[in-house]
Amino acid sequence: MEAFGDEFGEGSDERRWNAPEMWDVQPGWMSEEDLASTRGRVPMLYVEALPVRVDAGGRVTSVGLLLRGSATTGRITRSLVSGRVLHGEQLRDALMRNLEKDLGPTAFPVLPTTTIPAAIAEYFPWPTGRFHDPRQHAVALAFVVPVTGECHPRQDALEISWVSPEEAVSEGFAEELEGGRSSLLRQLLHHVGAI
Amino acid sequence: MEAFGDEFGEGSDERRWNAPEMWDVQPGWMSEEDLASTRGRVPMLYVEALPVRVDAGGRVTSVGLLLRGSATTGRITRSLVSGRVLHGEQLRDALMRNLEKDLGPTAFPVLPTTTIPAAIAEYFPWPTGRFHDPRQHAVALAFVVPVTGECHPRQDALEISWVSPEEAVSEGFAEELEGGRSSLLRQLLHHVGAI
Amino acid sequence: MEAFGDEFGEGSDERRWNAPEMWDVQPGWMSEEDLASTRGRVPMLYVEALPVRVDAGGRVTSVGLLLRGSATTGRITRSLVSGRVLHGEQLRDALMRNLEKDLGPTAFPVLPTTTIPAAIAEYFPWPTGRFHDPRQHAVALAFVVPVTGECHPRQDALEISWVSPEEAVSEGFAEELEGGRSSLLRQLLHHVGAI
Amino acid sequence: MEAFGDEFGEGSDERRWNAPEMWDVQPGWMSEEDLASTRGRVPMLYVEALPVRVDAGGRVTSVGLLLRGSATTGRITRSLVSGRVLHGEQLRDALMRNLEKDLGPTAFPVLPTTTIPAAIAEYFPWPTGRFHDPRQHAVALAFVVPVTGECHPRQDALEISWVSPEEAVSEGFAEELEGGRSSLLRQLLHHVGAI
Repeated sequence: MEAFGDEFGEGSDERRWNAPEMWDVQPGWMSEEDLASTRGRVPMLYVEALPVRVDAGGRVTSVGLLLRGSATTGRITRSLVSGRVLHGEQLRDALMRNLEKDLGPTAFPVLPTTTIPAAIAEYFPWPTGRFHDPRQHAVALAFVVPVTGECHPRQDALEISWVSPEEAVSEGFAEELEGGRSSLLRQLLHHVGAI
Repeated sequence: MEAFGDEFGEGSDERRWNAPEMWDVQPGWMSEEDLASTRGRVPMLYVEALPVRVDAGGRVTSVGLLLRGSATTGRITRSLVSGRVLHGEQLRDALMRNLEKDLGPTAFPVLPTTTIPAAIAEYFPWPTGRFHDPRQHAVALAFVVPVTGECHPRQDALEISWVSPEEAVSEGFAEELEGGRSSLLRQLLHHVGAI
Repeated sequence: MEAFGDEFGEGSDERRWNAPEMWDVQPGWMSEEDLASTRGRVPMLYVEALPVRVDAGGRVTSVGLLLRGSATTGRITRSLVSGRVLHGEQLRDALMRNLEKDLGPTAFPVLPTTTIPAAIAEYFPWPTGRFHDPRQHAVALAFVVPVTGECHPRQDALEISWVSPEEAVSEGFAEELEGGRSSLLRQLLHHVGAI
Repeated sequence: MEAFGDEFGEGSDERRWNAPEMWDVQPGWMSEEDLASTRGRVPMLYVEALPVRVDAGGRVTSVGLLLRGSATTGRITRSLVSGRVLHGEQLRDALMRNLEKDLGPTAFPVLPTTTIPAAIAEYFPWPTGRFHDPRQHAVALAFVVPVTGECHPRQDALEISWVSPEEAVSEGFAEELEGGRSSLLRQLLHHVGAI
């Protein structure tokens, strides 16, 4: 089980992206060994999404936070939707794949029209700076994503809880967000004018 | 008939915004005379929206341009959805009101989660600079807005035509956009990665 | 003395903007009476700027907050640089004029390359919503502006104090910011990754 | 010589980033073999910068384009400043390092206060889509960066030429930009309101 909750499982739709049929695309999947060595060499590109419910005018009315078990700390933690961008995969497809993975097949995310992110989070393995990921140097493009339909987390996310923006940034919740994501959550909620 | 196509008609839903009931809110409506004198004193705040169709990943697949008669030039011109922000009205409500006015009641606009615009357009009455509006100094916050449902223009818009992003920025169309809006259209389509 | 601290004094450089010489531009200046009646009819367009000091990499190291007397409450309050956009004036010129007015002639603001704001603040005269201005409905485009040189506030600003981003958002300071600007300040500091 | 012009040479300032002294940071440098295998496994993170000259109000007055020899095509091509983000390196440091590498030590880039990019460019090795890089899947965060001082390109860039925004997007120049960067250039110049 992974704190970041993002690895690419067998049987995933690896071919959704736009590589021409005849192109010898490298599979996104890597062995644990290859992944570990790659993580020591280059920054890993991630997408993160804050699932929200919105009213007819696009105002954020509630915020979905995932409850997740952390392999790193053993604690139960809260998290955003988060995952690695695979080789050959478009950012929009990485977002959709990770939203589906974490929210289930009956959730309908409404992606923004632009891939310019609402926030950039730089995670470093050393415990200095705003964001921290003990496993790696990762750079995440973060988005606020309205979701309609029913959310049923799968994989390692145990549950999704919907709370008001105010509750989401309250002290109790902030402590349960890992790696500096309480700051990211605040930034995203400010960006949409919800706090 | 107005080139900018935005005035607030009788019977519009003036009270949608959030003024408390007991508040003696100034009506958004003004006499022609008051409007004219106000236009000579302060910049007028506008919202503009580019209606688009998107695929499941949020990619823009087609662009809706309004066909409109111009009081200024007598020519038939193409236009974005555009209108004034009324006194006491929230930006999101101004966007929704103008989208409904121009696309009809069976169109369902999906507003962005943030009111930070994709572009800012500064119109001046003198014919210098990037944008021009012979009537006034106006500052417009411009957004790309996905629309589902059926669009049936009302009021002074004669028709909406849906074209590909490439066609929208082709030379024939660009000439039919007034006041420098072909530049605004390009900026918005670049912003969403459609051209 | 004005809470918003923005009115256009006599002798200001009214003609900096780009109206051609021969154009009969309306003066930005209005009588108190005209200003009051205009404020009751349309939203007023403002620019706001958070002055910051940055290091060579563009990281915000300190934040400049103005100490100002408030005509509304009689209290001493903290404030951002803020002012009305005049008729015929470009946004960049409005920003520069208000920065000069509040920081003095020996401060050198470095304006961003884009006029797309870092935040939008909608002030309403009724005390609901995120931002409040008892005088008017105002919409402000807000920017983070690095400043070099010496800052010597003039006009109604009594003093500028430079504090760390953390201190700026601490509880003591937040209480001294009017009209919801502590939320705006946080949004701007999140936008630049300083908190 | 490389089309993307970004590799990390010997003797570069590898330790500028913020890893604590005692931290066993992985060096950013990789052997050609390691780099090649990494490129086949994950998207590579890049920063790109469009150097510009600005006036006192932040308006872009001219655009700096690098003249560069391309290893891929043998042609002389124009390019933006562009380079890989190294393991452990902050985005701002990657931007500064690549700007210094391409513009020389007497150029003084003024980085934006935010790391949220003005544009995102997704390069794929297959020749479909908006951006193309024959070597790899790369995702670039692109910025507009005002530069003061003297620019003297080093390394593989032969020359920098300063042209007006209009000239930069004219047909002759557009053809000389590789991998779809003429679209990126237009997007960046629209973002700052220069075209």
